[in-house]
Amino acid sequence: MSDQYKFTLEESEIPTSWYNINPDMPVNPAETAWNAVLHPGTQEPATPEFLSVLFPMKFIMEAVSMDRWIEIPEPVRDIYKLWRPSPLIRARRLEKALDTPAHIYYKYEGVSPVGSHKPNTAIAQAFYAKEEGVKAFTTETGAGQWGSALAMACNFFDIDCHVYMVKVSYEQKPYRRVMMETYGAEVTPSPSDKTQYGQSVLAENPDSPGSLGIAISEAVEAAVTSDGKYKYSLGSVLGPVLMHQTVVGLEALKQFEKADEYPDVVIGCVGGGSNFGGFAFPFLHKNFTEGTKTRFVAVEPTACPTLTKGKYAFDYGDSAKSAPIVKMHTLGHSFVPPGIHAGGLRYHGMAPHISSLHDNGDIEAIALDQVSTFEGALQFARAEGIVPAPESSHAVKATIDEALKCKEEGTSKVIAFNLSGHGFFDLAAYDEYLHDNLVIYEYPQAEIEKATADLPEVQLG
Amino acid sequence: MSDQYKFTLEESEIPTSWYNINPDMPVNPAETAWNAVLHPGTQEPATPEFLSVLFPMKFIMEAVSMDRWIEIPEPVRDIYKLWRPSPLIRARRLEKALDTPAHIYYKYEGVSPVGSHKPNTAIAQAFYAKEEGVKAFTTETGAGQWGSALAMACNFFDIDCHVYMVKVSYEQKPYRRVMMETYGAEVTPSPSDKTQYGQSVLAENPDSPGSLGIAISEAVEAAVTSDGKYKYSLGSVLGPVLMHQTVVGLEALKQFEKADEYPDVVIGCVGGGSNFGGFAFPFLHKNFTEGTKTRFVAVEPTACPTLTKGKYAFDYGDSAKSAPIVKMHTLGHSFVPPGIHAGGLRYHGMAPHISSLHDNGDIEAIALDQVSTFEGALQFARAEGIVPAPESSHAVKATIDEALKCKEEGTSKVIAFNLSGHGFFDLAAYDEYLHDNLVIYEYPQAEIEKATADLPEVQLG
Repeated sequence: MSDQYKFTLEESEIPTSWYNINPDMPVNPAETAWNAVLHPGTQEPATPEFLSVLFPMKFIMEAVSMDRWIEIPEPVRDIYKLWRPSPLIRARRLEKALDTPAHIYYKYEGVSPVGSHKPNTAIAQAFYAKEEGVKAFTTETGAGQWGSALAMACNFFDIDCHVYMVKVSYEQKPYRRVMMETYGAEVTPSPSDKTQYGQSVLAENPDSPGSLGIAISEAVEAAVTSDGKYKYSLGSVLGPVLMHQTVVGLEALKQFEKADEYPDVVIGCVGGGSNFGGFAFPFLHKNFTEGTKTRFVAVEPTACPTLTKGKYAFDYGDSAKSAPIVKMHTLGHSFVPPGIHAGGLRYHGMAPHISSLHDNGDIEAIALDQVSTFEGALQFARAEGIVPAPESSHAVKATIDEALKCKEEGTSKVIAFNLSGHGFFDLAAYDEYLHDNLVIYEYPQAEIEKATADLPEVQLG
Repeated sequence: MSDQYKFTLEESEIPTSWYNINPDMPVNPAETAWNAVLHPGTQEPATPEFLSVLFPMKFIMEAVSMDRWIEIPEPVRDIYKLWRPSPLIRARRLEKALDTPAHIYYKYEGVSPVGSHKPNTAIAQAFYAKEEGVKAFTTETGAGQWGSALAMACNFFDIDCHVYMVKVSYEQKPYRRVMMETYGAEVTPSPSDKTQYGQSVLAENPDSPGSLGIAISEAVEAAVTSDGKYKYSLGSVLGPVLMHQTVVGLEALKQFEKADEYPDVVIGCVGGGSNFGGFAFPFLHKNFTEGTKTRFVAVEPTACPTLTKGKYAFDYGDSAKSAPIVKMHTLGHSFVPPGIHAGGLRYHGMAPHISSLHDNGDIEAIALDQVSTFEGALQFARAEGIVPAPESSHAVKATIDEALKCKEEGTSKVIAFNLSGHGFFDLAAYDEYLHDNLVIYEYPQAEIEKATADLPEVQLG
């Protein structure tokens, strides 16, 4: 076991392939891959032609690929080199503060230029779009984490980027908007009058603050009605997005070799599922193929308890029912999550792969309230220096709890979590926590029953 | 020459000693070191006893040391390991965007938990304070870059940190304040009623927005009147501060070996001088001892043109005349710089070492207006991804100009600059730039003459 704090890799050690979990899924691939993606109108399996209106063809082919390793294109890897490999850090000071026999490691994705793991897929998607002659990407963003990643990626490949940003965030949190504009993106507060759907929302309520659901619908409409000039880009949920993120877990595997340890528990926060999947799947692969017995813990907010309280069923990807239908854990497409600070975890659904793995018992899930996650975040910041993003703080707190359990039991487990981003843009939330102004939301089961009562009835062939 | 983008080092390669330039100063040490630090009241050389009221004794001894290499204490190095070594990155995309034959490298200090180079000295100072039984540090901060570094450092060594923050920043830029509080620091808007000097300012003008000069005076008073319980910490200007920052340049030297290149030009921005000194001095040492002919360019704002237009004379370190007198390039201790966004470069004086080296012709200085620095910053962000801090953008723009000169001349120089921090907290400034709302300040020579007319008349020895 190494006595180091930090495990770095040379840029030549950036993985040359992503890990595609499709061929290793322990459940019927019909429920997790291609043919379980349904057209929102017909509820029939979506054709590549339909999907290609939305996504670059390369992206669609990745979604259905049964190749275990998919080569990372050289231009993508070249951009990864700007900040990758990201460090794996042994949290020795946190261990000491907790007085735990556990060994705590975190992979730190906050070193990317936009401060999160999001560029790992944005770069790949922008490259595919460029290769296929796409002129621009449309996308939606809440607080702006994903939007700024895609804006940077599009800028690198010289394609336009149109971001529909939830209006209340656009007005109240201007900094991410400025960041997107710094990379040359066009940012539109949503609902807008640029789309029919936006116009219809505004006609009903001119003062609508917007929502992620509305913004998705606007971005999708803008792509669909562009005659193929624009495509739509999604920053989570879909298989290829999770696969692009496996660069995180694959690097971590190499770094654990250098540390001469191997994780007993792997922890990540889950919203759509991309940072968790990207970090966990390469370790899960070892469970499947080499008999390791690592536990996997997905951590979600009690305010949006998709895995722990949602239904495992077919549902629409967005509230306007314009995005494809997939089988996933869902709180219902009409679900509007409370305004917690972890904006990236406020999604009604969950990546189909993660839903399926959870359903099959391969990964565990827990839900934490935001006061306890900020408590963990503060403890982490004071021990390790880095101020975590509110999303990542869910993984932080779960890790601390796990480490304290080790102390109680006197066991020396190796715990690894993904610190998916920093909290430089979230200090207002820390301010609320420090002054006891944070609210705890528990989503009531009755509400979930109501919101999931009218899910589409799907009969697979 | 390596074909890599990024040159990383293992944590075992963090330098074990800082480089102390004192013995190598090419000019009379009496003007640059210990015995040119004068008591603000008597204008006589300050005694260690007087200075020890303000600073930890170890810090004072470093200021007068003639040892070329001073060992970095193990507890300091251990904390450096949380983010150091920082990467040296070849800006291949920027080179391509500029179509220049120059090779551009930047050392990126924005990877520290607070996003700048400042912790390199904050950690050392907090460790010395802890060792000497000091209960707390007082300090001042403008926008909060330095304050958050010291807050983090004090938290690591479990000593209190009292930060006097310029009131207008405290109110308008709350995020850095929250960051300091996250690390457990106490932050007071300055002028305050906690000090006599603050009370006197408030008596004259209850609505005073504060200034760095006032905040320094409050922090110094709080330390001086604490009966030795508190010491005062300064984040730039003084010799030991510059020396602690040489960890940056020393790492860069090792990284250039890996890159198999050596810089022809070394560039850094200058406010008090610590990031420039820390990056440049180890290379300057090679000029002195190994006959390399690297050029050094210090870049300051036209709004605060200390090196390019100031007087080289003895002056007070603060506007209240309570801090020691040193010989430096100065715009006069009563100088109030215009409100440019590069808050860290708004200081009337300059590190005595840098002033002396500039006076002796060892380093060059240029001044840039803020519109052109943001122009450079935008170009850099779009090429390399990272959004630079407004301070660092001065070095960015100077580098771009140098690289374009290479293109004109058809010469392939190696240019290295210190990217001292990221701009996540400065996006409002980018917003102003993107919307053409930035103002250019040129400080008029007549004003400088006036402000430097009443400098203290000092006769040495």
